[in-house]
Amino acid sequence: MRTLKLILEYDGTNYCGWQVQGTDPTIQGVLEQALAKVLDGPVRVNGAGRTDAGVHALGQVASFQTASRIPCDALQRALNSLLPRDVVVHAVQDVPADFHARYSALGKVYEYHILNRPLPSALRRRYVWHVPGPLDLDAMGTAAASLRGRHDFSSFRGAGSEVRTSERTLTEASLAREGDEIVLTFTADGFLRHMVRNIVGTLVEVGRRRRTPGEIVGILAARDRRAAGMTAPPQGLYLVRVLYVG
Amino acid sequence: MRTLKLILEYDGTNYCGWQVQGTDPTIQGVLEQALAKVLDGPVRVNGAGRTDAGVHALGQVASFQTASRIPCDALQRALNSLLPRDVVVHAVQDVPADFHARYSALGKVYEYHILNRPLPSALRRRYVWHVPGPLDLDAMGTAAASLRGRHDFSSFRGAGSEVRTSERTLTEASLAREGDEIVLTFTADGFLRHMVRNIVGTLVEVGRRRRTPGEIVGILAARDRRAAGMTAPPQGLYLVRVLYVG
Repeated sequence: MRTLKLILEYDGTNYCGWQVQGTDPTIQGVLEQALAKVLDGPVRVNGAGRTDAGVHALGQVASFQTASRIPCDALQRALNSLLPRDVVVHAVQDVPADFHARYSALGKVYEYHILNRPLPSALRRRYVWHVPGPLDLDAMGTAAASLRGRHDFSSFRGAGSEVRTSERTLTEASLAREGDEIVLTFTADGFLRHMVRNIVGTLVEVGRRRRTPGEIVGILAARDRRAAGMTAPPQGLYLVRVLYVG
Repeated sequence: MRTLKLILEYDGTNYCGWQVQGTDPTIQGVLEQALAKVLDGPVRVNGAGRTDAGVHALGQVASFQTASRIPCDALQRALNSLLPRDVVVHAVQDVPADFHARYSALGKVYEYHILNRPLPSALRRRYVWHVPGPLDLDAMGTAAASLRGRHDFSSFRGAGSEVRTSERTLTEASLAREGDEIVLTFTADGFLRHMVRNIVGTLVEVGRRRRTPGEIVGILAARDRRAAGMTAPPQGLYLVRVLYVG
């Protein structure tokens, strides 16, 4: 048996997220269908991150095992010819047998794009969260900085999550204005369900001066979802990269 | 009667172009429907540029006349609440009675976006032309420069055009690499049908070294569509701005 690693870009707009659930269209679903055709039999893939409906990926990672001896580049070409145009396989690699896209991951990088101008965008409506009013970027940056480090992020965890611990180490939480967009970047050893979207929603409340940056410490200490702010919508979120050893 | 000027952004993906034609969905069509609702009667708008199916706009201009006394900002808000999300009205202005979006225009600025990397993009598939192979940008820049000035652009004119003269003055024809995209910018006092797309298709043939930059002079002199290169696809093209006096 071989273990293969795939790196994927996708537009999450038309999918009910990564994970197969019934007959809803999912990224995992279309990927497994394409793999089954190429490899002539059912395949189950593991994804590094279970992105929600409408969330995008520039560098999602999936792994699976197969007895097929198809060369990696031939498999990549076959997949890209079979997959819908909103899913693109950027790389196919042979990896050690114990590689698992999710459990081997050391961390992930997410970006969140806010369109900060009075009017929404016709062209970018599926790829940004439109926040029309003025935002205090200095306050947002201070609040983001106070999230860095190892914390219990229960206050930013969405319902329905079943992980053992809600402690995570956020090594990067930063933001930058790029034209009329504000791009927020988050790197951590792992993310809880809706964690980035709940952080972004809270940071926007700080940007709107409905909360102060100083409140972040108390929100973390509360370990209660009700202490934090709203959940930012999915379409501004991108899984940029998954980090592994080597 | 008042004359009003609208500035529009739109995503052309789901439209059969600007101009009303039968029952096909067009930008002009959805705009006139929304205006008819707000102004309580039929309205005919004039567009500065008749963008093709799949072509986008950041700054299309439309004008129309109305007896309504609705304030500009109220009209803008009403239109943006009625229009589909892929059409956004960026400005509504009262203009002199003799203003006409098309006939008053002194020129237009178009951009064309090429994605130049081996793999297509899942996220940008509707917004770029994917050209996977290497492109000689120096040669393309030289070829673009030789298109500047006043010329008969018949060789770059698509079929079905009914304009009197095919002479145009191209004041800007330039290109720049921006990450994995090549962005071409064209400014002229007017553009013939498919002119930008035919120029871009020809420049890409120069970039692929199937033509030399020196051939451009002969292509212009031929005044024959068959002398130039292929028509670049619509989804990379953006009407960026329309130029008027003042």
